[in-house]
Amino acid sequence: MTNKNSQNQFRNFSAKYTHLFDEYIKSYFDSKINGYPHEFAKEILSDIKEYCLRDGKRIRPLLLLNSYIGYKRGFKKIEEIIKLGAAVEIMHSLLLIQDDIIDRSPMRRGGKAMHILLGDKYRPQTRNEYIGTDIASIVADIMFSCSLEIIANAKIRNSIRTEFLKIFSQTYEKTAWGQILDSLNTLPITLEKDTEAPMLISLMKTAYYTIAYPMTMGYVLSGGQGIHELEAIKNFGLTLGLAFQIRDDILSIFGVESETGKPSDSDLVEGKFTLLIHNTMQKLSDEDFTIFREKFLSQSKTPTDIEWIRCTIKDSGGLEETINSHESLIDEAYAKVEELSIKSANKEVLKGIIEAIEDLPI
Amino acid sequence: MTNKNSQNQFRNFSAKYTHLFDEYIKSYFDSKINGYPHEFAKEILSDIKEYCLRDGKRIRPLLLLNSYIGYKRGFKKIEEIIKLGAAVEIMHSLLLIQDDIIDRSPMRRGGKAMHILLGDKYRPQTRNEYIGTDIASIVADIMFSCSLEIIANAKIRNSIRTEFLKIFSQTYEKTAWGQILDSLNTLPITLEKDTEAPMLISLMKTAYYTIAYPMTMGYVLSGGQGIHELEAIKNFGLTLGLAFQIRDDILSIFGVESETGKPSDSDLVEGKFTLLIHNTMQKLSDEDFTIFREKFLSQSKTPTDIEWIRCTIKDSGGLEETINSHESLIDEAYAKVEELSIKSANKEVLKGIIEAIEDLPI
Repeated sequence: MTNKNSQNQFRNFSAKYTHLFDEYIKSYFDSKINGYPHEFAKEILSDIKEYCLRDGKRIRPLLLLNSYIGYKRGFKKIEEIIKLGAAVEIMHSLLLIQDDIIDRSPMRRGGKAMHILLGDKYRPQTRNEYIGTDIASIVADIMFSCSLEIIANAKIRNSIRTEFLKIFSQTYEKTAWGQILDSLNTLPITLEKDTEAPMLISLMKTAYYTIAYPMTMGYVLSGGQGIHELEAIKNFGLTLGLAFQIRDDILSIFGVESETGKPSDSDLVEGKFTLLIHNTMQKLSDEDFTIFREKFLSQSKTPTDIEWIRCTIKDSGGLEETINSHESLIDEAYAKVEELSIKSANKEVLKGIIEAIEDLPI
Repeated sequence: MTNKNSQNQFRNFSAKYTHLFDEYIKSYFDSKINGYPHEFAKEILSDIKEYCLRDGKRIRPLLLLNSYIGYKRGFKKIEEIIKLGAAVEIMHSLLLIQDDIIDRSPMRRGGKAMHILLGDKYRPQTRNEYIGTDIASIVADIMFSCSLEIIANAKIRNSIRTEFLKIFSQTYEKTAWGQILDSLNTLPITLEKDTEAPMLISLMKTAYYTIAYPMTMGYVLSGGQGIHELEAIKNFGLTLGLAFQIRDDILSIFGVESETGKPSDSDLVEGKFTLLIHNTMQKLSDEDFTIFREKFLSQSKTPTDIEWIRCTIKDSGGLEETINSHESLIDEAYAKVEELSIKSANKEVLKGIIEAIEDLPI
């Protein structure tokens, strides 16, 4: 089913456009930094700029742009769409800052997490030990406002800006619900066998947020309003997004550390309630489920506990079922991409993404 | 200079419209609550609704609406402008939630602060002791998105929506800078005599945020784009806003507790660096300044220390100068309101606000 050229199409597309988002983010913040008379604001704007420009795949702005180019007939305003993609990337950085505050993570994308960076910088000035987190949480408001400023000033038709704003607000509302549900299911006192939480979190925090909404934004920016096409984008986006999340869940526990870039037991140590864990729970007898849950929820897991959990995920058939889900979702994604009435060159870019997450190196 | 009828005009205006903002907020969240299939989202939306509807003056939406009505010629879309006022009030609630997290305040507007309310509700489900603060910080994203959704869906001209969005983004960016500067000057290790921080904080967190920007929003919504009028609104708004903040600073320390509703030493206990404190510092010799600063910055002030600081503010002439500033600003506000080309009925509403903050009951 795969077309070995298509991944190249995604790589080509990414190589052609990624730097443009970064260049716009840089020039936007540089001009803000120059425009501010106040030293403290210049300093923090520089930190925001550096943070937004750290290495990352820029997958959301790329999907937005690919969708715009693929659906737009006639004259294209690539330069203005790049700005809106940059606004989406700034919003992503904002969510990463909030994620790290909530997860108490000290690092992000090869640098200090924002609350750590600001804490280290400003703690000498104040006796408020939480100054880093306090300021980082307000920096999020500034980044939200910056995104809106970019949206308000982009040279696009006002009627299209309005439609874009509707999708934009839905995106961050749904993602926030996913984040809240995720928080409510982190370090839980207990776990239920039959809960929709892991599926909902995967849909809201990944599938809608990373794939379906960015593609929808690009479609709307192209002037598209077709209910049928919006539905087709959503179906494709949620399928691919779920495949992506499930792959991530599996690799986090069974992947090769050198390839995933994080210790393959961190999800287990934290007790992250993923679809893989959910599938495993379904396979267990009530008795085994009780033992599994106790070990999984324990906050002081020994290496033996971790290994026991990993074996149970395998032996129960939970892993196999999840691998099968991933495979089915990939097949479905290849089928659903054909239903999109996007230009064929841009369809190839989407196939390139499917191909990139088709492989499951465990 | 005062016109004893004008305060009535503000009261009349407030009595006529305040409930409409609240009714829209209620119906907006009710319809969202009904539309959501997920119980956790329904619950949190109910909490957000209850929080937004707590007693408050609704000064920002009222100023927005007064400005719209006062500048708009011909047919008025009051109902749509009420929605945008509600969006501004939801944003205000969001900022109060963040304020309380930063200040570690447990109460707000006669109820629990949002992070306390959510913590009490969800702590039994998780071993994350910060769950209340974690979820409250994400609730802020939801409220920001809700405001954008309201803005995107209001039935106003798209070109006007775009202009409104520009002011809207400026408002929350500038306010956030004020909040950051305020945090950097709370519990400081030291204080400088010649700093612009207290003035900047008063301008950004109060004068722009509470008066100048809401009035500008209403003007822009009326279709106004005149640079001269925008400047006149800003001048009036910043003058009145500063008068308001200075009055608040004075009453916080010298006011009658039964009238201000808070202990008249809380600002001193916290060591809040206001313009009143700044003015006092200017009056002191270098030697006296050093003593004053030490006592003011101490985190374990005795009642005798508090009384000594209060006396120093008085005896130094700092209080008198600040009272004089307030008086001058009130005079200026009366002069500047005349420069607005707003309809006379709506000018009377503005004079009513000046009158309400003219009186300094100490």
